[in-house]
Formats: sequence, C-alpha cells, structure tokens
Amino acid sequence: MSQILRLHYAPDNASLCVRLALEEMAIPYETVLVDRAAKAQKSPAYLALNPNGLIPVLETPHGPVFETAAILMWLAETDDKLMPRVGTPARMHALQWMLWLANTLHHTLRMTFYPSQYTNGDSGAVQSMAQQRLRAQLDLLAAAQTTPWLDSAASSLHACYLAPMLRWAALYGGGADWFDLENWPRLTAFAKRMDARESTIRVAFAEGLGPTPISRPAPCTPPEGSAL
Amino acid sequence: MSQILRLHYAPDNASLCVRLALEEMAIPYETVLVDRAAKAQKSPAYLALNPNGLIPVLETPHGPVFETAAILMWLAETDDKLMPRVGTPARMHALQWMLWLANTLHHTLRMTFYPSQYTNGDSGAVQSMAQQRLRAQLDLLAAAQTTPWLDSAASSLHACYLAPMLRWAALYGGGADWFDLENWPRLTAFAKRMDARESTIRVAFAEGLGPTPISRPAPCTPPEGSAL
Repeated sequence: MSQILRLHYAPDNASLCVRLALEEMAIPYETVLVDRAAKAQKSPAYLALNPNGLIPVLETPHGPVFETAAILMWLAETDDKLMPRVGTPARMHALQWMLWLANTLHHTLRMTFYPSQYTNGDSGAVQSMAQQRLRAQLDLLAAAQTTPWLDSAASSLHACYLAPMLRWAALYGGGADWFDLENWPRLTAFAKRMDARESTIRVAFAEGLGPTPISRPAPCTPPEGSAL
Repeated sequence: MSQILRLHYAPDNASLCVRLALEEMAIPYETVLVDRAAKAQKSPAYLALNPNGLIPVLETPHGPVFETAAILMWLAETDDKLMPRVGTPARMHALQWMLWLANTLHHTLRMTFYPSQYTNGDSGAVQSMAQQRLRAQLDLLAAAQTTPWLDSAASSLHACYLAPMLRWAALYGGGADWFDLENWPRLTAFAKRMDARESTIRVAFAEGLGPTPISRPAPCTPPEGSAL
C-alpha cells in the first residue's frame, strides 16, 4: 500500500472536512474522485473500502479508514495542532464537542439531506423535523461556554468539521427559507473567519466552492465529479 | 467541585455504557439518579449540566461532560486498558469503530426507541425503517474484519458501548418480533462473554438488569429510578 494518504472524495461531500484538516496540518495527500453520478460509492470496489457505502474513505499505511470524525481525530493525533493534547484539561470538552458534532449535528443535517432514507412514510415530515432540530442544535452550540475553538483565530479539528456543515445546511438542507446563518452572529463570525483561511481558499478552489464558501455559500461548480 | 467522578444516570440508560467502563477500569465513582419519571433530565438544574437534556453526564474535576462516546474516550485516555494507545497501528480502526458505534449504531437505535422525535408525521414509518437499518448495520458489524475487540476475552471501550446497545435493541426497539440476536452468532458469542464479566455482573446488580442482561435480556427492575 502507498505510504501517502489517499482521500476518496466527492466535491462538497463529507470528505471536505478531512481535506480541510489535511490542509491545515500540511499533511501530503492524494485525492481519488468517487463518481457519485454513477453511484460509485455503492460499487463493490468502494464497499470493500467502506462497507457503509459513504464518503469519505482515507487509505493509510494501516489500511482504509472510514467515519469522518474518526479520520479527523486520528489525523489530529499525529501532532498537537488541531486538538488539545491527551491529558490536558481542555481535552475533555474538545472530545465532547467532536462527538456532538458527529453524533448530533452531522446526523441531524444528514436527515435534512436524505429524509427518505429514514422513513417508510412521508419524507417531508422527517425533513421538517430535522430542520427544526438542527436550528435548536445551532442555538445550543451558539450559546456554549466550553467551545473556545468557535471564537479562535487558530484552526481546530472542530472548525474543519463545523465549517462545511454550515455550508451544507444552507445549500442542501431542503430549500432556502428554513436556514439563515445570520440568525447566529457567533456562528456567522466563525464562518467569515473560516472563509479567509488559506486552507479554506485552497480547498474551495480545488472543489469549486466559490469565494465565500462557508459564510455565504453558492452551489458548487467542481472541476471534476458532482456533489450529489 | 468534588474530585471523585459523579455519574448522572438512570437505570438501563446510556449511562450504563459509562458505568461498565468505570467498573472495567476500576475508577472510583459516585452515581446520582436522574428521575426520568419526573423528566428530571429536562429540569433547569440538569440542563445546566447538559443542555441537550440527555443522560448521562459525568461530573469531573474539569467540569461536567456529556456525549456517551466522548466520556468513554476521555476515560480511556487515563490508561491504555480499553483502547489501543495513541500512535499504535490498532488505534486507527479502534477510533473508527467507536465513532461508528456512536454515529451510526447508537443513533439508529435511538430512532427505534423514540421515532416520534424524528418526524412530524407517522412515527411507525420511522421506527420500521430504523429497525431495518439497524439489522443491516449489525450485519455489517458481524462481518467486519477490523474488530478484534468483538472476539476478545479482554474488555474494550467498544465492548462497554456495544453490549448495552444489544440489550436495548431487544427490549426497547419496538416489540419483540423484529430483533433476534441469535441471527448474528458472532454477536451472540460476544454477548455471552459480556454477561460473564465481573463488571457486567456488578452493574447488572446495581441497576436491576437480571442474570443474562446482554445475551437474553429481561426488562429491568431497578432498586431506584426508572429506565423510561
């Protein structure tokens, strides 16, 4: 197996979080396009890498790894840049919020994107509830006291994870009228800081995410592949 | 703040995973009952500890912490007993499966318990889809090659997390006819090993979980509080 990390990605998919972290950490990597238009993420070759059929997968010297948050946390363990070090007081809440982003926010967001995967009945009724839950979760996040990464000029694993989610809520969560980032000034300030980061600019260029990809996102126009 | 860990728990709730890990690691702790019958997890005092209104919370010298998987991972960082050490080859897939248990299995299971929280429409249609997804997820887990913890005589963070989930699927996932652990011999063997562990026996006694709490669970008869 290659020693360089290979990120199986599709533009504007969850791979974006991992790509941002790789850029922030200046870790060399290659990308492998997953052709969503051909449902390549459900092909036997891809399922051999990730039996869940989800994007991303990262190929590593230890084999392929899936689960966005796990990939992020594993990468962050190679240095101390994006997460507080094991054994430090800040570590505990850093773990808490990583898991909350994965378990709670990301999952709820996914239910706004793909409501029909979660019911044998009316998917609109699932989507509207997910939208309502997501707004309540962002209220909770915006009021949190144990989230220094939300206000920091430095990057963090959490920032790499949250920033794409704010983008996706605006673009893919089901119409434009249910979500307005400006309702959360603290999150809006975070999004604007993220837009200005070198790593965001590089990744936005690579995946066609436009000039304000987090704070005021426009549909992506990728040089290869498709978001959906 | 007290230096001893205080676990806010309800019998047979997600706090059970944390309690199992504390017992496995022989870490001293106190329990504080959350009175679910009185919806104490939605009280202002509890919301100050966990604004999500979910059980468990662990009070620590660094403040309260929520998110079951985050609590487990933070506890496991205090020694190398239940998770492979940072920087070892086994670490990557250990992280992957912890996140999969949290993101995927636990979330799907929660949708079988509380389907009405996830739709403004027919909750039965959400529950039946969640049951179908959960069975497919257990198929995937039972076929996984990167899960040595599933077959090990030693304990692990994953075992402490998975074992209660297998119990809950049988008891709370919506009737008895949709879930039969015997369909997954590898998981059944795991459940029987877990039933025999000292830590499981101690916790089962404390929370009234009966003699075969994981492999053949009966409804809990706790000495205090209620599961629902």
